[in-house]
Amino acid sequence: MAGLAPDRHARVLSIIQTARAKRARFRDPVITMAHGAGGKASTALIEGLLLPALCSPALQQLGDAASLDVDGAELALTTDSFVVRPLRFPGGSIGELAVNGTVNDLAVSGARPLALTLSLVLEEGLDAHELRAQVDAIAAAAASAGVAVVAGDTKVVERGHGDGIYICTTGLGVRDRRARLGAERLAAGDRILVSGAIAEHGTAIMLARGELGLQADVESDTRSLWPVVDTLLDAAGDGLRLMRDPTRGGVASALNEIARASALGMLVREADVPVAPAVAGAAEILGIDPMYVANEGKLIAFVAPELAADALTALRAMPAGEHAAEIGEVCAEPPGMVLVQTAFGGRRVMDELVGDPLPRIC
Amino acid sequence: MAGLAPDRHARVLSIIQTARAKRARFRDPVITMAHGAGGKASTALIEGLLLPALCSPALQQLGDAASLDVDGAELALTTDSFVVRPLRFPGGSIGELAVNGTVNDLAVSGARPLALTLSLVLEEGLDAHELRAQVDAIAAAAASAGVAVVAGDTKVVERGHGDGIYICTTGLGVRDRRARLGAERLAAGDRILVSGAIAEHGTAIMLARGELGLQADVESDTRSLWPVVDTLLDAAGDGLRLMRDPTRGGVASALNEIARASALGMLVREADVPVAPAVAGAAEILGIDPMYVANEGKLIAFVAPELAADALTALRAMPAGEHAAEIGEVCAEPPGMVLVQTAFGGRRVMDELVGDPLPRIC
Repeated sequence: MAGLAPDRHARVLSIIQTARAKRARFRDPVITMAHGAGGKASTALIEGLLLPALCSPALQQLGDAASLDVDGAELALTTDSFVVRPLRFPGGSIGELAVNGTVNDLAVSGARPLALTLSLVLEEGLDAHELRAQVDAIAAAAASAGVAVVAGDTKVVERGHGDGIYICTTGLGVRDRRARLGAERLAAGDRILVSGAIAEHGTAIMLARGELGLQADVESDTRSLWPVVDTLLDAAGDGLRLMRDPTRGGVASALNEIARASALGMLVREADVPVAPAVAGAAEILGIDPMYVANEGKLIAFVAPELAADALTALRAMPAGEHAAEIGEVCAEPPGMVLVQTAFGGRRVMDELVGDPLPRIC
Repeated sequence: MAGLAPDRHARVLSIIQTARAKRARFRDPVITMAHGAGGKASTALIEGLLLPALCSPALQQLGDAASLDVDGAELALTTDSFVVRPLRFPGGSIGELAVNGTVNDLAVSGARPLALTLSLVLEEGLDAHELRAQVDAIAAAAASAGVAVVAGDTKVVERGHGDGIYICTTGLGVRDRRARLGAERLAAGDRILVSGAIAEHGTAIMLARGELGLQADVESDTRSLWPVVDTLLDAAGDGLRLMRDPTRGGVASALNEIARASALGMLVREADVPVAPAVAGAAEILGIDPMYVANEGKLIAFVAPELAADALTALRAMPAGEHAAEIGEVCAEPPGMVLVQTAFGGRRVMDELVGDPLPRIC
């Protein structure tokens, strides 16, 4: 929007803001791939259909995990299904992803992961070696993340009604006493940090599908984020306002969600966002902005300005954290929106993802 | 085995017992529908592949729900995927089943259901009205069972890689102080009760598919079992040894599982097992024993002999409990096996389900 006159700019922003203040409606006649992509259509499905029908206070919070107090225990509970294809890809597998993805939803909610449940939907005809490899990957990832798989279920569907393996994991965690997180704690001036280079998981999956005839040395970043969260809680304590793991829809969708929830604005400096050269190259060829590409081992953290430098130092000392960076800050204006300062000095709106350029990424 | 001479009978039983004392091995090259049916192949997959790889103490218990102690809270956690077809059937729907099935796994573990997570795998092209109807069914069933849906996830797979809707629900409950349940608490002489007429859910599903050209007025029995469990805990207290909800694989598979786990025998009196005439008729035409047909709103309870009459009276006073019955008892011999006393006075082994006569029943 660098080319717009200031008053025109303000008018456009105001129209977008009015549209966003309303809860999204769901009016689509059929489900499309976009409803699973984590962008606008997903938001409409969740806010327009699921939340109004299910209307529980925990669900309305729209966090990565629900907070529950049971007999004095401060618990967190989260669930995720995994339908990624292919089942194995550079840097990981569906089994590993199913553990780390759920563990990370707990971690960024400020909860130490304790236990997982595991539900498998297998397709008739699945090779038993593939199943064994995935179960081993689940066991290894769970051990590495320090969680136990405590309950499970297995269903089988006929050939042509699945795709090898779908996995649903649910994670139970205990809220860390150091964590005081929430969109309501954000304030103008808070710094936005990312824990490393972005867009690696989604790019690795795309390349692994081989449909693009593109080769590049990119691996999924799937890993447990609890050690990173633990470190951040030590380094920033009460100054740590909120975290998110930017999976489907990428950093752009996560920031938009938080901007909407907090009714604050965000300004991201494009030049400061860490992207590995191979990832940037693949994204450019594919015409996809890395800000919309899924991550499975990175988090965004909002930190009070006076603690941002300490938090960044701590992040950079973590494994795979050498590219951690401060990428922008929270602003009072424009409320509910994310702006990008481009490398050329202009500003544009960074909207939620529309459509599904990368189906079944997790 | 009524026709065998006593020594031959004893020899056959001994061979079967030796085979059972070993944990099942998993050697199948590919996954078949039988691995999802809750019978022998499922047992082999769980005991031969999943448990050895995932090896957590909670999982090894093989209960309907895992027991977890977190900061003094005594929790239960369970998960289930639902892939039933058709999505709606007389007496229920996949959404209703997904709530009640998971709530019931908590209930029969002696845990009061508190919260559910909900993960949807939707097939591209799904009619939005169908989705809305199922989400409404989930909301209604959750309200009726007194649980909140606290977290959720939605994924979409391409047309031809799903079947409308698959649902994974995970349930969190708090263990009831009155409940002291476990296979190790079973003793010879304990009575086996069922909370009502069996085989209704599976029969309703089969008939709803219309493949059999058979019409009968049979509805699924899907409902929350917590009120029944609550009543039984009051009526039998410490005399309530163990409960199970006989879903996939039916009463026969549930009894076999418990016989194996307790290393005790069971004798079931066939004539005392309550089966509605329409269900019995359909089963006879289909050549399926109702003992192997799934239930979604009935439980089996093992009760100390001196409290069995009180427990049965309490069960019969419950809604849909008028056909509750004592169907047999626990015996010292033959360990690990279930025998049936037929209506003609003979005895035969009632084995686990083999194959999958009724695929995708839940």
